[in-house]
Amino acid sequence: MISVATEKDGSQIRDIAARAGVFSQEEVDCVGELWEEYLSLGSERCGYNFIVEQEEDQVLGFACYGPRDLTDGVFDLYWIAVDPDARRKKVGYRLITACEDEVRKLDGRIIIAETSGTAHYEPTRKFYFDVGYLIEASIKDFYVVGDDLMIFTKRL
Amino acid sequence: MISVATEKDGSQIRDIAARAGVFSQEEVDCVGELWEEYLSLGSERCGYNFIVEQEEDQVLGFACYGPRDLTDGVFDLYWIAVDPDARRKKVGYRLITACEDEVRKLDGRIIIAETSGTAHYEPTRKFYFDVGYLIEASIKDFYVVGDDLMIFTKRL
Repeated sequence: MISVATEKDGSQIRDIAARAGVFSQEEVDCVGELWEEYLSLGSERCGYNFIVEQEEDQVLGFACYGPRDLTDGVFDLYWIAVDPDARRKKVGYRLITACEDEVRKLDGRIIIAETSGTAHYEPTRKFYFDVGYLIEASIKDFYVVGDDLMIFTKRL
Repeated sequence: MISVATEKDGSQIRDIAARAGVFSQEEVDCVGELWEEYLSLGSERCGYNFIVEQEEDQVLGFACYGPRDLTDGVFDLYWIAVDPDARRKKVGYRLITACEDEVRKLDGRIIIAETSGTAHYEPTRKFYFDVGYLIEASIKDFYVVGDDLMIFTKRL
């Protein structure tokens, strides 16, 4: 079941981010920082919304999204990650669909998902293509030299 | 003379942002919010650096830049604005050159300047082209429908 994340989900969210296999330590730390802001300020004030898919008390995956400042109806999908032990159950698909449903309710027009252009992120890019996202823009050598930014978007 | 902005410059910075003629009220407010963070936390902790060009005690223009999270050497030029009464004195040119010099010192490789694709921002885009920036990417209907995001970059 997908629901809004609450305090008790924090340690499993961090754990999944660390074990997902696609995030650097700096990125895992960033997930933790957004989570702290989400808990202490609330989603409205901090601009980050966390949702989780759970099976009983176990978190199988999470996503984090929020409105882009200074735009009318653009939302960023900041993070989406699935427990490696829960792959092939369409957890990612249900999470991103839930994000899109919530963004639609908030009159969102566009979701942006940024990822890397390296071979390591090929499964991530395939996931976004499979769920209807397109690469609308890219910036060469963004993360480091040889690692381009790929900006996926989906019109809702 | 260009220098790091200090507390006394705050009211003139906000005033220039409001009078520059290119920023919405929401954007002017955003400048004010970044300024408050810069004053209260310092540039290192908040990630925003403000510089000003002054003539005696008068601020003629300001720029705000900072490192992009999760990248190695990418910096955003968040804001650059010149007092309308101080146009045609190359204030903008000196401010952006000073930003680039500071970014180089911090081992920055790329500066990103985001702006709008509408006719109203044609002078802004011309300014970026004139100082060596290129449109590397764009996102359609980003700010609102009909108002595209133009992502200018410069390799240092």
